[in-house]
Amino acid sequence: MPIYNAPVEDMMFLFEKLRNNKKYNEIDKYKEFNPDLVKDILEEAAKVTQNLILPLAKSGDENPAILENGVVRTPPGYKEAYKKFIEDGWVSLSCDPKYGGQGMPKTVSTFFDEMLSAASLSFKLYSELTIGAYNCLLNHASDEIKNLYLPKMVEGKWSGTMCLTEPVCGTDLGLLKTKAQEQSGGTYKISGQKIFITSGDHDLTENIIHLVLARSTDSPKGTKGISLFLVPKFIVNTDGSVGSRNGVSTGSIEDKMGIKGSATCVLNFDEAVGYMIGPKNKGLNSMFTMMNLERIIVGIQGLGISEIAYQNSLSYAKERKQGKSHNSKSNNGADLIIEHADIRRSLLNMKSIIEGERALSFWLSQQIEVSLNHNDEKTKQEASDFVSLITPVVKSMFTDNAMEITSEAMQIHGGYGFTKDQGIEQLYRDNRITPIYEGTNSVQAADLVFRKLITKNGDVIDRYIQLVKDEIDFKEDKAQFYVKELNKNIETLVKFTEWIKDKVKNVPEDASAACNDYLKVLGLVATGHAWIKVLEVCYKEYENNKEFYEEKIQTAKFFFNRVLPKAESHFLTATTGSKYIMDYKFN
Amino acid sequence: MPIYNAPVEDMMFLFEKLRNNKKYNEIDKYKEFNPDLVKDILEEAAKVTQNLILPLAKSGDENPAILENGVVRTPPGYKEAYKKFIEDGWVSLSCDPKYGGQGMPKTVSTFFDEMLSAASLSFKLYSELTIGAYNCLLNHASDEIKNLYLPKMVEGKWSGTMCLTEPVCGTDLGLLKTKAQEQSGGTYKISGQKIFITSGDHDLTENIIHLVLARSTDSPKGTKGISLFLVPKFIVNTDGSVGSRNGVSTGSIEDKMGIKGSATCVLNFDEAVGYMIGPKNKGLNSMFTMMNLERIIVGIQGLGISEIAYQNSLSYAKERKQGKSHNSKSNNGADLIIEHADIRRSLLNMKSIIEGERALSFWLSQQIEVSLNHNDEKTKQEASDFVSLITPVVKSMFTDNAMEITSEAMQIHGGYGFTKDQGIEQLYRDNRITPIYEGTNSVQAADLVFRKLITKNGDVIDRYIQLVKDEIDFKEDKAQFYVKELNKNIETLVKFTEWIKDKVKNVPEDASAACNDYLKVLGLVATGHAWIKVLEVCYKEYENNKEFYEEKIQTAKFFFNRVLPKAESHFLTATTGSKYIMDYKFN
Repeated sequence: MPIYNAPVEDMMFLFEKLRNNKKYNEIDKYKEFNPDLVKDILEEAAKVTQNLILPLAKSGDENPAILENGVVRTPPGYKEAYKKFIEDGWVSLSCDPKYGGQGMPKTVSTFFDEMLSAASLSFKLYSELTIGAYNCLLNHASDEIKNLYLPKMVEGKWSGTMCLTEPVCGTDLGLLKTKAQEQSGGTYKISGQKIFITSGDHDLTENIIHLVLARSTDSPKGTKGISLFLVPKFIVNTDGSVGSRNGVSTGSIEDKMGIKGSATCVLNFDEAVGYMIGPKNKGLNSMFTMMNLERIIVGIQGLGISEIAYQNSLSYAKERKQGKSHNSKSNNGADLIIEHADIRRSLLNMKSIIEGERALSFWLSQQIEVSLNHNDEKTKQEASDFVSLITPVVKSMFTDNAMEITSEAMQIHGGYGFTKDQGIEQLYRDNRITPIYEGTNSVQAADLVFRKLITKNGDVIDRYIQLVKDEIDFKEDKAQFYVKELNKNIETLVKFTEWIKDKVKNVPEDASAACNDYLKVLGLVATGHAWIKVLEVCYKEYENNKEFYEEKIQTAKFFFNRVLPKAESHFLTATTGSKYIMDYKFN
Repeated sequence: MPIYNAPVEDMMFLFEKLRNNKKYNEIDKYKEFNPDLVKDILEEAAKVTQNLILPLAKSGDENPAILENGVVRTPPGYKEAYKKFIEDGWVSLSCDPKYGGQGMPKTVSTFFDEMLSAASLSFKLYSELTIGAYNCLLNHASDEIKNLYLPKMVEGKWSGTMCLTEPVCGTDLGLLKTKAQEQSGGTYKISGQKIFITSGDHDLTENIIHLVLARSTDSPKGTKGISLFLVPKFIVNTDGSVGSRNGVSTGSIEDKMGIKGSATCVLNFDEAVGYMIGPKNKGLNSMFTMMNLERIIVGIQGLGISEIAYQNSLSYAKERKQGKSHNSKSNNGADLIIEHADIRRSLLNMKSIIEGERALSFWLSQQIEVSLNHNDEKTKQEASDFVSLITPVVKSMFTDNAMEITSEAMQIHGGYGFTKDQGIEQLYRDNRITPIYEGTNSVQAADLVFRKLITKNGDVIDRYIQLVKDEIDFKEDKAQFYVKELNKNIETLVKFTEWIKDKVKNVPEDASAACNDYLKVLGLVATGHAWIKVLEVCYKEYENNKEFYEEKIQTAKFFFNRVLPKAESHFLTATTGSKYIMDYKFN
């Protein structure tokens, strides 16, 4: 079983030292979440993930969720762990106190998302979609629905799903066929098949609240005829008690490469009773509330899995002896592999990406809080625009990097990385879903380039680049290497941005063939920005905690020397256009 | 089950049109292998791999090799297929006719290695190591041993293994502990444990011939005390019949992420009778004969798996409809995903890498033949130096690229790529061993930089770069874009080479931390070189086969626009040195 120590120190560093965000600090609501309280919470969270959740990872991989006589059974140990998990209130962390939640800001709950993902992504998914469904209902459902459903979901006694995909439509929801037939009482009968439904059925909760996209029988074709429906597994009586079984059944569960403990279901809706959520034919808009937050969390899943992969690689490198290093001091026998330059390079690659990503995601969490809770509408909107811009970056870049990092972990473990014993190959397999679900990483890149750079609110990317430029202009001599390197890459981003804005208008295929590279360049600069904000603290407060800050400064050095400069080659290769790609005749 | 059509047309193109290698053509021996004969062989090979072997892939994944009561059983269907496979003589393809082989040159047998790897890597491994062991014995064993063992191995009735790794030594064989105690009759008793032994035990052959590295009880410590021994599973009587069981038993078999049909064994040697092969204490040298060829074949495994991943991606992209392309002509419904620029980019990335690699490996096969069979010793040595130089490149780059390509195949398949149905995720898992076994890719990179650039035979890398420069200087106006791009990257390689030669001497840690990047730059230039040789033919013979040559020219365009230029960023990031890496304090 892999080891895992939740990186509470790094998280607390971010929480304490990087709250220097004026607009975030203007939000009254979270003043009570002071560092002492947060530290207590994170330390409790660390215990839960390390002791209760981590052992479930292997169990779920070896005993996948199964469908038996129409009932989905979760792996051994899941039920007991989930019971304890909800009893201790971990599902409700970020939810509104009005419905029984703890009202924790994203700046804290995201750290918990990271820990849970590291410990067992399969187990996490059972409650993760509940929070997604909760957010969607919170924003779009009537008070009646909210009062009836949200308290049980916040408690974790009922779970949630998001039912989008059908056999012929994944990315392209305009094609969806699930029908909704209006009934006399204002409810609907939902019929159709949904596939790839995470936690679509299981034995952990008393009820499952499906949020289903379907087309009302009198709605138009395409995306403009899609509405959102709440379809419970068991009908909920008006007093909140669980009633009779609804017309939803599990057709099968997927046999997958990874996250085997998570039940990925085919759900058949057969005249199931559904309640419309939000305005008719505006279902996609409502669902996107849920999906955008989910996409960020998928990025955080990648970050969590990266962290546990790194920790195990470091530990193995400190135990395994093999070969002599170039400056070996041992006269006989081999050196620890951590003495080898190439292994150190690999470890620092992981670490510098992980810590940069964690700082970036902390910045993003602050923006989310501002976008949801600030008093000034303009400030809210600006933060919301930045969140929209960076969401596809975090989803794609973090998950791609997690593949790189789990792969490097396997290489460091050699043959032992490929066998089941050490659990490394499971991290690699489990993470492999993250670049696919919630929209493949290419879909994210297209979303970024075609919908997020310039919106009805103006030129978001230019405002973002300006923000980065303003924030990195700090006068510490020792930091000039970092500032200079980042500025160089900002110039690349600026050129690439001009090019791509032009192409989006005039030669969209060029933009489409370049969007993955563009996302990577923006992501590298965004991570560089996050690192600079970290470095600013490190230099200012250096004397207070030399060892910790020196480690940060040196880790950053790797990022700026070896990771960030990759931006240039993405720019050069992607701007060769797409004519030769579009003209190609595939035989 | 994935589809597979062996790329016989591309192979025949290389075989017919790229034999313009003067030194290769000076070898008498292979004149008889004319294109017509080779085409017949490849078409038969295509049938065997597509019809007999391909169906075994899924069976092996679903029913892994198991150890039952001390006996290893291969997956259902393997036994019957193997019987047919050896009856039709496929094991003997490249072996010496003196021992019953067909004497096929590497330029042909490598194509078959590629096909087999695509169809089922697990199945292939059962005969692959036999050929490795055959080559080792052919070069180092006495005539007596050769006459006794080789005919049965060539026939495929006996198989072979290479037993190097032990629990504490993988890369670093100097640490090995297996003992060899000399007996009065000149034989040895071998005792110790070997792990990760591919095909270490199974039920396909009558006998298994283990080649075992062990330390004679009177030999020194370290690599200078290692000898090579032949240890048969069953003692072979002097008349060639199979006698009593030897002291080798299977302790366990590994539960692995992929290649589950292949039995990876822990072998316990308990006073097993062994016969020394080659000179005492020179076992590593002898084993390397086998390992170098094996390393190239591992690269070819990556190439084969890349090809099948590409074919299935292309086929899926032509069937799956999702979203509108930018220049969509359809009024309702979605377009085929092959209309989308980003999917086309991904497909061309795969294809341009695969075809470049196939051309490079064909060049390498020619060099191998020259190194083994040319009459002139100097010519032989020069070719041998080039083979040594490019071997780690082919092993590492092809297998890393195969991870990229199988990963892109999963992305194109979306959620269906992550489930078991289509067999795509199996390609990804099966290939994941290739960057690890036969020396991890980092070990290859260190081997390249520290042992292959400059050898006792002089400055091999400079000679190679000169060869590339000489060969790409062809005067076709239309090809100037390609030549110019390659020259730009050759300049990068030259600068990087100067830097790294200096560092190998003066700051070896710098070279060590840069070796993976250096390997990639050399690999990109080598593939560019191979592509230029292909293009030379395409332009010269354009009128004879316009469609085929135009497709090649356009595929190359992608490689030169989007793949080759990645060299620069490897150079820039790797030459930042290693001081900040070596000084880092890992807590």
